[in-house]
Amino acid sequence: MSEKKLCYKVATKMMADTKFEHNLGIFLENVDDGFAKMKMKVTNMMLNGHGTCQGGAIFSFADATFAIACNSRNIVTVAQSCDISFVKPAYEDDILIATATEKYIKGRSGIYDVVVTNQRYESIAFFTGKSRAINGTILESKDI
Amino acid sequence: MSEKKLCYKVATKMMADTKFEHNLGIFLENVDDGFAKMKMKVTNMMLNGHGTCQGGAIFSFADATFAIACNSRNIVTVAQSCDISFVKPAYEDDILIATATEKYIKGRSGIYDVVVTNQRYESIAFFTGKSRAINGTILESKDI
Amino acid sequence: MSEKKLCYKVATKMMADTKFEHNLGIFLENVDDGFAKMKMKVTNMMLNGHGTCQGGAIFSFADATFAIACNSRNIVTVAQSCDISFVKPAYEDDILIATATEKYIKGRSGIYDVVVTNQRYESIAFFTGKSRAINGTILESKDI
Amino acid sequence: MSEKKLCYKVATKMMADTKFEHNLGIFLENVDDGFAKMKMKVTNMMLNGHGTCQGGAIFSFADATFAIACNSRNIVTVAQSCDISFVKPAYEDDILIATATEKYIKGRSGIYDVVVTNQRYESIAFFTGKSRAINGTILESKDI
Repeated sequence: MSEKKLCYKVATKMMADTKFEHNLGIFLENVDDGFAKMKMKVTNMMLNGHGTCQGGAIFSFADATFAIACNSRNIVTVAQSCDISFVKPAYEDDILIATATEKYIKGRSGIYDVVVTNQRYESIAFFTGKSRAINGTILESKDI
Repeated sequence: MSEKKLCYKVATKMMADTKFEHNLGIFLENVDDGFAKMKMKVTNMMLNGHGTCQGGAIFSFADATFAIACNSRNIVTVAQSCDISFVKPAYEDDILIATATEKYIKGRSGIYDVVVTNQRYESIAFFTGKSRAINGTILESKDI
Repeated sequence: MSEKKLCYKVATKMMADTKFEHNLGIFLENVDDGFAKMKMKVTNMMLNGHGTCQGGAIFSFADATFAIACNSRNIVTVAQSCDISFVKPAYEDDILIATATEKYIKGRSGIYDVVVTNQRYESIAFFTGKSRAINGTILESKDI
Repeated sequence: MSEKKLCYKVATKMMADTKFEHNLGIFLENVDDGFAKMKMKVTNMMLNGHGTCQGGAIFSFADATFAIACNSRNIVTVAQSCDISFVKPAYEDDILIATATEKYIKGRSGIYDVVVTNQRYESIAFFTGKSRAINGTILESKDI
């Protein structure tokens, strides 16, 4: 991950601006144009009554990775819709990895696939996010 | 909301068992068989860099409402997949209401629609959750 | 169904212009602003090797109903994305009814739910379509 | 495409059993375990009033490709749900290619991605299908 690339600077700014991801303990592992990889440890706070990680925590993790990928070119981009399929439970202390890749981009619209796996490379969830670029940039010219 | 009904007792137990929803400040407003209504205030912690509520927080809120609705008959039921469309941003101090209704249930499979609105009755997000009942109950016979 | 209403005239024009729906034997039962109800008989031509109706035929039927509903105000509107869940098979000679209702509309964007049932009022499929209005009208002013 | 492989024999049997795909002029290009590639020419019959290919025809084509991929191991497998995003119109005489790949399979459940492109390798639609294996085989032992 080159710390001099624009996508890295944008991702760093976005991560600094969000308390929600920070509270979930989400870390940036890698970023590139239209690509992001993040890490999150499943904590006791995320468990439901069955002792498995809440879907909301897994979604939030995948969604955060999608957000870094779709904003990577410094154009403010928001989620229009997302879907997620949960294929295997995650448990306390599991280390989850989410990888977002750009499936399609044209004009203001993009489609991104995110795969969430655990530390044994087992698939936990599949997420697809649709994005729409709006006006504005994350970083101003002077900060690039 | 009758506090003597089974669905109410199940919902209360589920809410007590989850720290995640508790941290988001989600409250139960109403519950019935296959139905749930919840409230959540958008806090500063939920905001992203644009000053709007994170999609992950809205999803988690809708998902929690879906969970209460699909577990309401005291059969342990998990989410298989969910999709969400974000149609209007939510802002700090907005009071969100999520209402989950059962669209379909047969055997172990169910489909639930959740609508999230703000305090002005404006639609914020539309969520659909697919559930699958597994073995076990939330409350034991002795606790009903 | 008032044959003098604009939505009726638009639907009639759209049905006349499409050979695909015609080949599937899809008929208009009712139409209103943001609403449509259509009928289709499952024919031998639609069956797969298991003797049940092809998903493509059921999707096409639901999609046609969605199209009539989202174009009902005489603004050319196209599908952006659709999802469908198949909950019960349909068989030869079943009479299917699809009902499309407008869940959300704002500016150019709309969300429509379509329910497909058989002649015994059993749910066959649930479809959701997202639409986007583009430029142009189905009927010209002189034809209204 | 090895004509001696089981997946090829299964695909050939499935294609022979369906009049619906035959009517749409869908041809098998390649098949492997969990994989299928199909071709379809957009005909005048598939056009709507705007002169573009009906979503139902594109869905049916993607769905047929998904069906060949998810049945490729000779276990009868049906679609539970599908979603499709239309990103570019297709026009008369366009030659569409659909490619289905297996994203996930475990026990009876599978997830398949299908990409539909035109003859200029432009993306037309993205489809995801969820499958569930049921009892039975497409080919009997004596036919393998």
